[in-house]
Amino acid sequence: MKALLLVAHGSRREASNEEVRALARRMARYHGGGFARVEAAFLELAEPSIAEGIGALAAAGAREVVVLPYFLSAGRHVSQDIPAEVERARARHPETVIRLAPHLGSAPGVAALLAELAGETDRTAAS
Amino acid sequence: MKALLLVAHGSRREASNEEVRALARRMARYHGGGFARVEAAFLELAEPSIAEGIGALAAAGAREVVVLPYFLSAGRHVSQDIPAEVERARARHPETVIRLAPHLGSAPGVAALLAELAGETDRTAAS
Repeated sequence: MKALLLVAHGSRREASNEEVRALARRMARYHGGGFARVEAAFLELAEPSIAEGIGALAAAGAREVVVLPYFLSAGRHVSQDIPAEVERARARHPETVIRLAPHLGSAPGVAALLAELAGETDRTAAS
Repeated sequence: MKALLLVAHGSRREASNEEVRALARRMARYHGGGFARVEAAFLELAEPSIAEGIGALAAAGAREVVVLPYFLSAGRHVSQDIPAEVERARARHPETVIRLAPHLGSAPGVAALLAELAGETDRTAAS
């Protein structure tokens, strides 16, 4: 079983964490691809943690877990903190292949998506 | 002339701000659509500010400026701070139509983009 773990920073504002969980559910429903499960996890301030998220998927029988950073910029969290969590998880779950995907902000498709959004302005709010 | 202002939070890490400026340049080159200019601006910690960004575009002859929040979640910055900046800019530039686009995280296309990224894991880094 192959699983996807969407990793966000985590927020004190619980509604922001819930947005990420809802996105993971939407991906599971419509964009599952080869992923039998899609879950959300958080670097800090919210639960589950990355370690807990990977642990739950491994316990559920995942033989492969893809960790995808839901981050816009390649700061310390993306370049150091998340890779370090992945390394620790690999040591704890030698039977599971844990892969790290590029972070959202690095996707070439972001520019096209923004261009599309730019066309969807609220015309009633225009001056 | 119609212009697009990509508004990010802004970071103390200058490389993150430069990533946003590079994204704006990439959009100008490949996804300009109806936009004669695409520029970046920042809510805080980096320059130009939203007010400066809109002011420069208006001074350059923009008759319409679309402000697009480069944010993943609909927190206070997206729901209050950026709309307030847009309101103030409308008062300062009554000759310019200033529209507010939805924030990146609200785009339905984000899920498909993430699913695509999830396929691009670093196989050499797999355990």
